[in-house]
Amino acid sequence: MKSKVPLLNIITRYILKRKGKQIRPLFVFLCAEVCGGTSESSFTGASLIELLHTATLVHDDVVDESFHRRGLFSVNALWKNKIAVLAGDYLLSKGLLIAIENNEFNLLRIVSEATREMSEGELMQLEKARKLDVSEAVYFEIIRKKTASLIASCCAIGASSAGADQQMVKQMHTCGQAIGIAFQIKDDLMDFDMNSQTGKPKGLDIKEKKMTLPLIYMLGELDYLQRRKIIHLIKYNHNDQEKVKKLVEQVKISGGIDYAEKKMKEYQQQAINILSGFPESEAKKSLENLIRFTIERKR
Amino acid sequence: MKSKVPLLNIITRYILKRKGKQIRPLFVFLCAEVCGGTSESSFTGASLIELLHTATLVHDDVVDESFHRRGLFSVNALWKNKIAVLAGDYLLSKGLLIAIENNEFNLLRIVSEATREMSEGELMQLEKARKLDVSEAVYFEIIRKKTASLIASCCAIGASSAGADQQMVKQMHTCGQAIGIAFQIKDDLMDFDMNSQTGKPKGLDIKEKKMTLPLIYMLGELDYLQRRKIIHLIKYNHNDQEKVKKLVEQVKISGGIDYAEKKMKEYQQQAINILSGFPESEAKKSLENLIRFTIERKR
Repeated sequence: MKSKVPLLNIITRYILKRKGKQIRPLFVFLCAEVCGGTSESSFTGASLIELLHTATLVHDDVVDESFHRRGLFSVNALWKNKIAVLAGDYLLSKGLLIAIENNEFNLLRIVSEATREMSEGELMQLEKARKLDVSEAVYFEIIRKKTASLIASCCAIGASSAGADQQMVKQMHTCGQAIGIAFQIKDDLMDFDMNSQTGKPKGLDIKEKKMTLPLIYMLGELDYLQRRKIIHLIKYNHNDQEKVKKLVEQVKISGGIDYAEKKMKEYQQQAINILSGFPESEAKKSLENLIRFTIERKR
Repeated sequence: MKSKVPLLNIITRYILKRKGKQIRPLFVFLCAEVCGGTSESSFTGASLIELLHTATLVHDDVVDESFHRRGLFSVNALWKNKIAVLAGDYLLSKGLLIAIENNEFNLLRIVSEATREMSEGELMQLEKARKLDVSEAVYFEIIRKKTASLIASCCAIGASSAGADQQMVKQMHTCGQAIGIAFQIKDDLMDFDMNSQTGKPKGLDIKEKKMTLPLIYMLGELDYLQRRKIIHLIKYNHNDQEKVKKLVEQVKISGGIDYAEKKMKEYQQQAINILSGFPESEAKKSLENLIRFTIERKR
């Protein structure tokens, strides 16, 4: 990542300090092992994916005007939007360049489809956030594009980098997609968890007018007038702490949390089922554990 | 460009309404003709380049907080930064996807190098803008990366898409780089031109603390104390209309404009000289005219 531009080196060093769980490269490596073994390509693929994901986070913070990320300041908080947008572009093109220089055109094909779907998914979510008319079907389409497409790419890239055939790559892609959907439902659910410091549920998604699965489920159970009332609350009173707290309670009582948990486990099971077709190995056990982690994690 | 996300379709339709000179695709097509003839690849390359360039403009407007572009509102003015950053990412990935789907890996290789250089160049410029310590050598490195690398790519892509050999592709790349440098010096010079409506020079670059060639030349002619005084003015009084106007006058008197014009013409001549090695044709004449246009244009 070393560049001739000193400012860029400072930024990339800073980003490295706050690197996250790096769960996406893990999926690349474990899927490669399950499909025959990691290769030089697996490393290229893992780098490509992590750079792309990091670029997205840097842009997300600009987009959301977030000044914190993983306990540290965000890039835009320290260097302003201007530099953060450019740094994100740089990370993205650097990732693509690594793949191109290594003639990894299969990996590129897998990943570029995901990149397009990710921005489509984000934009769909923003569009729907204005009207709040998100059906369950639309919800699943958004999270499939926004979150699951990249994790699907990780698994497909892992398989492809191990020399797997087209059919196996496709299976792994489907497996990763199911993992990604479960991962996002988990994210949604955590927003209803108690905050360990304040003892209150966070409800951040509601404040950002994001329609999550537990909420969508509840809305489906209500009659027209009740639904209108809640949509009105989300639209115009999403900053009223008390009202948001009440809404969170209401979602819990409606069975929305249970429903989302059920769905999450269905997708988890779907991923595990696909894996069961692969021979037993240490890597497969680790991959199963990693899948379990995605739905049991606390952050 | 049609997408399943309605908001994206509205944005791309809007962007199409304010399409610019589309000078970059022109370079692709004319260079292809000069090197043996346009092919299907030339169209892919031209689309890739124009999408990438448009993505950059959309991000630039976010970065510069510009609310106007080509006489219409900018994307971020109409839809906010959030959507503009995502729309830019979408355009970029869509461009790459078109190339990948068409197995145009040579074109991708040429263009991805330019993408990286473009963000490096922009970041270098921002970094230097804080200290204002831009030597002529640094200035040329910045504009080579920021502007000339993409035009160099256009010419190289044109040649490559016509089936030219490595050496010819490289020649065209060098030719495009010279054109791009002349193009940027012209941009710098236009900032010292009279505004047709107000009759005053624009001096926008000074207001944005951008060091342009005429200014850098003048600073080189001054002694230490005079130079400090002017740097102080740019740093702290760049919003003082009267002072900026005086500075513009001073640059003119110093011979900075003449010097920049001389340099611009040298680069133009360099490009024409490279072309002289290619056989005469209608396309070559058009390309020469287009090069002339880059330094004679009024906007």
